[in-house]
Amino acid sequence: MTDVVDVTEERNINFAGAHRALSAALQEASTLQVAFCIAVVDRAGNLVVYGRMDGAALLSGQIAQDKAYTVCAFNGLPTHEWFEMIKDEPALLHGIVKTDRLIVFGGGIPIRVGGELVGAVGVSGGTADQDRQVAEAAAASIA
Amino acid sequence: MTDVVDVTEERNINFAGAHRALSAALQEASTLQVAFCIAVVDRAGNLVVYGRMDGAALLSGQIAQDKAYTVCAFNGLPTHEWFEMIKDEPALLHGIVKTDRLIVFGGGIPIRVGGELVGAVGVSGGTADQDRQVAEAAAASIA
Amino acid sequence: MTDVVDVTEERNINFAGAHRALSAALQEASTLQVAFCIAVVDRAGNLVVYGRMDGAALLSGQIAQDKAYTVCAFNGLPTHEWFEMIKDEPALLHGIVKTDRLIVFGGGIPIRVGGELVGAVGVSGGTADQDRQVAEAAAASIA
Amino acid sequence: MTDVVDVTEERNINFAGAHRALSAALQEASTLQVAFCIAVVDRAGNLVVYGRMDGAALLSGQIAQDKAYTVCAFNGLPTHEWFEMIKDEPALLHGIVKTDRLIVFGGGIPIRVGGELVGAVGVSGGTADQDRQVAEAAAASIA
Repeated sequence: MTDVVDVTEERNINFAGAHRALSAALQEASTLQVAFCIAVVDRAGNLVVYGRMDGAALLSGQIAQDKAYTVCAFNGLPTHEWFEMIKDEPALLHGIVKTDRLIVFGGGIPIRVGGELVGAVGVSGGTADQDRQVAEAAAASIA
Repeated sequence: MTDVVDVTEERNINFAGAHRALSAALQEASTLQVAFCIAVVDRAGNLVVYGRMDGAALLSGQIAQDKAYTVCAFNGLPTHEWFEMIKDEPALLHGIVKTDRLIVFGGGIPIRVGGELVGAVGVSGGTADQDRQVAEAAAASIA
Repeated sequence: MTDVVDVTEERNINFAGAHRALSAALQEASTLQVAFCIAVVDRAGNLVVYGRMDGAALLSGQIAQDKAYTVCAFNGLPTHEWFEMIKDEPALLHGIVKTDRLIVFGGGIPIRVGGELVGAVGVSGGTADQDRQVAEAAAASIA
Repeated sequence: MTDVVDVTEERNINFAGAHRALSAALQEASTLQVAFCIAVVDRAGNLVVYGRMDGAALLSGQIAQDKAYTVCAFNGLPTHEWFEMIKDEPALLHGIVKTDRLIVFGGGIPIRVGGELVGAVGVSGGTADQDRQVAEAAAASIA
């Protein structure tokens, strides 16, 4: 981001980048033999590309989208870092988890280019660790 | 399920099957002398047949429907298996129970034909064990 | 669809088919030089594949998904046929358009295989005619 | 209804009555060869019995329930009388139709016993006239 008068220069993932991330997620998923839902959002958290693999749970669809949204809605924090952050603060632990679209377990990973947050990947369908692994592979595919 | 080009062959419960499941649930309920709400959904979680017995709690109506939905939205997992799955993972325990329509206690049972998920039964009104017993009787009535 | 005891045999679009439909939509879109949001849903109206082209309106994202949902939620009727059906019935014209997720203008097209509804495409971003043209190209790509 | 001190005696449809109404609706539907969703609610508008016939549109499920609710939520007025009542009052015509769960077209019919409203039937899936015909047959089956 570069500030000039009144406006800020930003970089944002585009369709080609988001689709590349989906393809990388599908390739990683094939090594795990698990069916996932995969969502790629832009830096504002809006959905750019989505795919539900055959056999993935219906419930995972919204969760995948919400994981990606959560990352961008909190400046790029991966979703697996949320619980560590709130677990020892009872008011947060009980109070913030109900926030609409907030997901506090693994599977949401930022997409960064040159250190700048440009989007995020959310994956759901396996264990939290599997979801995270697939999301990290997707995010890593963006230069 | 059989994959052919572009489409997958599936089986889905129909009205006759769903109504048979309701009748089986009512019969099992009569042995318990408890009033239940009973919901039967198709494989996508949409309501096919519903019945609220005289005296069943109003609150149980939506819960019964949500239990059946939860089963189909998570590939057939009975709702009584959810808590075991999340109880030792604090991030899930605190983070996933708020998911819209997700029920993590007993009373939602898959309906399978030849091993394939074709729908689900959700029951609410008694204890979790009673709800489960009635739902299992209903699911077992489908060949 | 074939009815057997308690269940109905159905076909449902899979990820490969839905992704093929997205690709066909993108190709048709390139001839129009307009940016679209494209949603492909299964026969129950659940999202399978989604893409937002660079420059497409944010508002179009939900509309595209709702168009595809509307088609499957009403047995395959293309969304451009809704208005003709209700325009001379004032009670419907005023009363049904508020229905959640119902879209009554063009851009939602059924995907059929052997005459059976297996999913739908929803497109938004251009005029209703352009949206429809892109959705029809996508649906036609499925055998 | 009979008022005594502090409380009012009411009659309310029970499961047996609601299920009888569903059966009557199914029988009437078989003469029309159309697939309907059928909802029977108690006098407070809560769902007692529901059935979705094979092939009925998913969209019709909520509309059928909302029609039955609308009847009981407005003291028994059939839904087909709503539009006549509001059509010449522009503020109502444009303003009230958006009310949550209010349906202003045919297919919702009160169930009365001895003149007293005890529940309602809501039917959706055919034309407004067909929906009304099936709902009236269902309501007439209750003495």
